[in-house]
Amino acid sequence: MNLGAQTEQRGDTGAASAAATARGGADAWWAPIERAVAERVLASAGSPPLTLVLPSGQEVRHGAAPPIARMRVADAGTLLALLGPSAELRFGDAYADGRIAIEGDLQGLLDAVFRAPRSGWMTRLGTCWRWLRRRSNSLGRSRANVHHHYDLGNDFYALWLDREMVYTCAYFPTAEASLEEAQVAKMEHVGRKLRLRPGEMVLEAGCGWGALALHLARHHGVRVRACNVSVAQLEWARERARREGLAQRVEFVEEDYRSLTGRCDAFVSVGMLEHVGPEHYADLRRVIDRTLAPDGRGLLHSIGRNRPIEFGPFVARRIFPGAYPPTLREMVGLLEPADLSVLDVENLRLHYARTLEHWLARFEAHRDDIAKQLGERFVRMWHLYLAGSVAGFRTGTLQLFQVLFARGRSNTIPWTREDLYRRSPAP
Amino acid sequence: MNLGAQTEQRGDTGAASAAATARGGADAWWAPIERAVAERVLASAGSPPLTLVLPSGQEVRHGAAPPIARMRVADAGTLLALLGPSAELRFGDAYADGRIAIEGDLQGLLDAVFRAPRSGWMTRLGTCWRWLRRRSNSLGRSRANVHHHYDLGNDFYALWLDREMVYTCAYFPTAEASLEEAQVAKMEHVGRKLRLRPGEMVLEAGCGWGALALHLARHHGVRVRACNVSVAQLEWARERARREGLAQRVEFVEEDYRSLTGRCDAFVSVGMLEHVGPEHYADLRRVIDRTLAPDGRGLLHSIGRNRPIEFGPFVARRIFPGAYPPTLREMVGLLEPADLSVLDVENLRLHYARTLEHWLARFEAHRDDIAKQLGERFVRMWHLYLAGSVAGFRTGTLQLFQVLFARGRSNTIPWTREDLYRRSPAP
Repeated sequence: MNLGAQTEQRGDTGAASAAATARGGADAWWAPIERAVAERVLASAGSPPLTLVLPSGQEVRHGAAPPIARMRVADAGTLLALLGPSAELRFGDAYADGRIAIEGDLQGLLDAVFRAPRSGWMTRLGTCWRWLRRRSNSLGRSRANVHHHYDLGNDFYALWLDREMVYTCAYFPTAEASLEEAQVAKMEHVGRKLRLRPGEMVLEAGCGWGALALHLARHHGVRVRACNVSVAQLEWARERARREGLAQRVEFVEEDYRSLTGRCDAFVSVGMLEHVGPEHYADLRRVIDRTLAPDGRGLLHSIGRNRPIEFGPFVARRIFPGAYPPTLREMVGLLEPADLSVLDVENLRLHYARTLEHWLARFEAHRDDIAKQLGERFVRMWHLYLAGSVAGFRTGTLQLFQVLFARGRSNTIPWTREDLYRRSPAP
Repeated sequence: MNLGAQTEQRGDTGAASAAATARGGADAWWAPIERAVAERVLASAGSPPLTLVLPSGQEVRHGAAPPIARMRVADAGTLLALLGPSAELRFGDAYADGRIAIEGDLQGLLDAVFRAPRSGWMTRLGTCWRWLRRRSNSLGRSRANVHHHYDLGNDFYALWLDREMVYTCAYFPTAEASLEEAQVAKMEHVGRKLRLRPGEMVLEAGCGWGALALHLARHHGVRVRACNVSVAQLEWARERARREGLAQRVEFVEEDYRSLTGRCDAFVSVGMLEHVGPEHYADLRRVIDRTLAPDGRGLLHSIGRNRPIEFGPFVARRIFPGAYPPTLREMVGLLEPADLSVLDVENLRLHYARTLEHWLARFEAHRDDIAKQLGERFVRMWHLYLAGSVAGFRTGTLQLFQVLFARGRSNTIPWTREDLYRRSPAP
């Protein structure tokens, strides 16, 4: 095996080629073990186009694709942690800590990892394990989970979100639209899908910084009651409503979606369902069923999957505790027992990839500011989360579903969808 | 109870009022039983706005709504058969035989019956019973079931379908469009949704008289392989392809969908899934999965439900044996295990109500011709089926889902849906 010398080995087929190099300094007994571990790590990640630089200085490649990045692993413990079911989480933590460093095209590397076929049983085992670990989003836990992510400070989000502070998938009418334009277009798209009429009452479950509620009130003439459990977001939203003279028509309430009462002509929830968890879909259905008027419409907008798989352990533990991305089957199954009729489903996954590219570029442009506020480790962790999410939506690992529905017996439903695409002055 | 005399009884609340009249001639012992049975029948149908004229001549009404029709029941056996779980089937058979006659607004009456709330356990019992009775659509049984409905003769269908012979839900760009325009618009809508490119290969499962396959070949420049198990339809389709010079590009094959092989850029099935049965959704998925190219798209168009309920016994036995209308959850669940990504769902139920209104009017205009061909009993049965279907789609008892999908890893998917609504010269 020519340990301790400059070597390159390549399989005859080329399909499963491997290259290993050791640049002196490694103990002779450890070097082959280190390289064997590294090859196993690369194989289980689907042989990404990567040169792995090991603690000993050995370099390992796997697969035929030319490497687009170099990944340095600082110590043997970090390398060993990349084996086993928690590998993704360990990788994320080590990357955040700087024990793993990546030089080169991180985004291309993540795209390749997300594209690589993974063995079915590993995926199933992982999703089963995470399902067992994910705790139900009780009222108290929901607040804690939301606080974990959304109460990082309005100043932080203001650095890299659009000026409306919309932290959900945008809608780019053309691929060239700016993020600011695309977030306004998304809110208008949602308002149009709901076919809102002036004077109608809208309930919004999970309102973020309030941009959609304010948009619907201003441009569709409706009243809105919008709930959220993030105090930092609510303060911002209320202040904006006062400043813009909409406080009489838009009410921001500190309430969990399960506590929503009253009657509405439209029920809307954009980017909350991911945080509800399937154990509580029946709760959400009951809220919709008890609040929606006989001719009411509703829209659920959520990150989703083609197949039922939990979020990866890095996202599930470090970024969005308690979250679960439903399949479309699970989303429409939520509505089924209440005889709610699905009118329209649109999958906007490529729009979320584009949205995240914008966020990532702005995040990187403010990297130093954010590091001063929240530390270097946080910046590295979030960079990985944003770039990983870009890869997830680009590769079809993640989906974005908008589901429009109405009461099953209502005939005040749109005749076609042509009205959604009529040109009109941008709001 | 004033039997044998002109009487009218009305509850004080008005909500559950009843009127009963007996015009002599009835045996004293039978009249109260007959009336009690009639009231039970009316209650179980949700107290429709109807005057029931019983064999003895007694007239019974139930509920507060003014009657819009009179229903005459010829004999005691027919009346008794309207009690119990097979009531709908017995009603349909008696109507077809003329043992039940309806004077007045049959369509309004059916709409009211479909709108009336029914007790949950009756519906569940009925659906469970029909589920047990419905036999799986094996290859042989599928052919028999298709033959039952679709091989009634091309001349028969030509009397009341549009000139393209399309026997599925049309798409009315405006409510004023004619049936001929709306069927062409539907085929164009499907072609646009699939984003077909000239030279691509399309597989069509269940092609009817071939109109869609020929439309796609002519207006989208694709080649089509279309299958059907109805010999009468295939002969018509092949003759039309020859006549229109498209036989080189459109191949009509006598094959069950399960036998389809080859590779396609688009897989389309319009109005077949209702006949597949949920036991065979996995078969259909396997066909799609083995034929669809990596950047392929697919479209399933099917009658459906908001909640999982079998067809009523009249339709299930007399009109569409073996058929089952899936919920949207069941339709997208069909695609899930193959990592197929749903891009777009559109619910066209009001378009199917409109389509059926056109068919019913044309059917009625040719009533005498059809009676000569197929008998008076057939005409009455089919009138009931068409009018009942109008009611089903009008009242939200039935849905029509178009589900567009692509391979989960394909990024050659449309950016928005705006292209579907661009004005262009009608084909």
